Amino acid sequence: MSKLIQRLTIIGVGLIGGSLARALKQADVCGEIVGCGRDEVELKKAVELGVIDRYAVDPAEAVCGADVVLLAVPLSAMRGVMESIKPALATDVILTDVGSAKVSVLDDARAVFGELPPGLVLGHPIAGTEKSGVEASFATLYQKRKVILTPLDGSNDDALSTVAAMWRYAGAEVVEMSAEHHDLVLAATSHLPHVLAYTLVDSLARMDETSEIFQYAAGGFRDFTRIASSDAKMWHDICLANRTELLNVLSHFRKDLDMLSVALESSDSEAILECFSRAKLARDHFSKLIAE
Amino acid sequence: MSKLIQRLTIIGVGLIGGSLARALKQADVCGEIVGCGRDEVELKKAVELGVIDRYAVDPAEAVCGADVVLLAVPLSAMRGVMESIKPALATDVILTDVGSAKVSVLDDARAVFGELPPGLVLGHPIAGTEKSGVEASFATLYQKRKVILTPLDGSNDDALSTVAAMWRYAGAEVVEMSAEHHDLVLAATSHLPHVLAYTLVDSLARMDETSEIFQYAAGGFRDFTRIASSDAKMWHDICLANRTELLNVLSHFRKDLDMLSVALESSDSEAILECFSRAKLARDHFSKLIAE
Repeated sequence: MSKLIQRLTIIGVGLIGGSLARALKQADVCGEIVGCGRDEVELKKAVELGVIDRYAVDPAEAVCGADVVLLAVPLSAMRGVMESIKPALATDVILTDVGSAKVSVLDDARAVFGELPPGLVLGHPIAGTEKSGVEASFATLYQKRKVILTPLDGSNDDALSTVAAMWRYAGAEVVEMSAEHHDLVLAATSHLPHVLAYTLVDSLARMDETSEIFQYAAGGFRDFTRIASSDAKMWHDICLANRTELLNVLSHFRKDLDMLSVALESSDSEAILECFSRAKLARDHFSKLIAE
Repeated sequence: MSKLIQRLTIIGVGLIGGSLARALKQADVCGEIVGCGRDEVELKKAVELGVIDRYAVDPAEAVCGADVVLLAVPLSAMRGVMESIKPALATDVILTDVGSAKVSVLDDARAVFGELPPGLVLGHPIAGTEKSGVEASFATLYQKRKVILTPLDGSNDDALSTVAAMWRYAGAEVVEMSAEHHDLVLAATSHLPHVLAYTLVDSLARMDETSEIFQYAAGGFRDFTRIASSDAKMWHDICLANRTELLNVLSHFRKDLDMLSVALESSDSEAILECFSRAKLARDHFSKLIAE
């Protein structure tokens, strides 16, 4: 019987790409999984761990004969990788990615390909850990996690159904929305919280009482520092790639924080309690929607 | 043999007061534990659960004959409770508390007692959960957690050593600092993070895409909503009680957030990466100090 994918090429075999490869191997839905990346030591390790079947260091060589190509590289590397693989892609290739921002990847694709390839269906798995690298990858990372696909009007149905099926075999729940809407929602739920966590930890780390502050880190701050332990370069890329939407929600947040600051200055008990109570109500109301 | 405490009166038998009572019962270091609170149903439950030996609804009655009195009531209730118990306190009573801000409790005590009682040694256990009420209490809440005591120049040594020993029997590590310093450190590590979490959740909850935002809550935002699920009235009290120090760190943070916002607006890649990298470095450097 023919498999879902004959040859899957994953460019960037780290936590995200490696975990998908592991899950698809377990589901036995790929004829062959080819890895590609800049670090040959990592690629050798990926073969030894059984995550991929073989590798190529040259992206063009790696995508040769692939029916599906997954870009799992940092957002800042997307355009360069697309340029490298463009001459070697099959005409009917299905091209997808895992980037945390989607409009910027579409812009990269437009810049490289001109007209967008009909097999292009971008995606974003809402999953991850603070770790990185192929050794941190595991087959169950996407179990019950959401994957957002952002098909275009011109995307072909076969590409969309193949990419969706691939993620479902990895255990994920697939949802669809526009790239623009994805970027707005993720700016609010993920990118802004990371900006606040990084800024808070940096802000406190530069205070005189630093070591003490970290020593007495209570519940609240410990959660913030956990967020701020994510890869700094990766989050820098994400924030720049989605800066328009991020600036939009950040501006909302700063206005609200200014208002709370004024309320504190004037000991406006009612305004403070209203803000905190609304937040707790919202959290309790939506807590069922939040996978714990 | 005589016990560490003959009669301990705990005013406010919820998560914090109840968990200490449970731990001291296990350690068998109190002759008797008397509970007091406004909700008689809760107090009856506390007796049934074996958390306290008996209770009184009237604070003055409850502290009668107590050698140690622990105030585990909200910060906004401290002054009123002190006024109620003042006439009934033994002259050599040891009086302590668990409030999340310390200067405001000292102010309350000065307002009620005039000169501060020599047996007054305030404290703050850095522990808790998002739950509240005596049913949520458990004996191991303070195991390996820090308790900050803020003795005064005039505090007597016996009171300090008794309060310290009480917390150590509950499994806590006791440290000492001034009330002012406590408030500065906690404003940074606990009060500001809670303000940011509440403000973010409230800010996003009022956006049009609310239900979707909560549905796609990724790692970062989920941590924020967890913080914002804490008791709103309690945190309102804490923020007002420690508003001077809180406004101080909030002002630092807002300046840093303004700078990051400017960096994003101008796509200042270097400034963003520097901020995120410093934060990650600080977090990694101090991660050993943070109990996971």
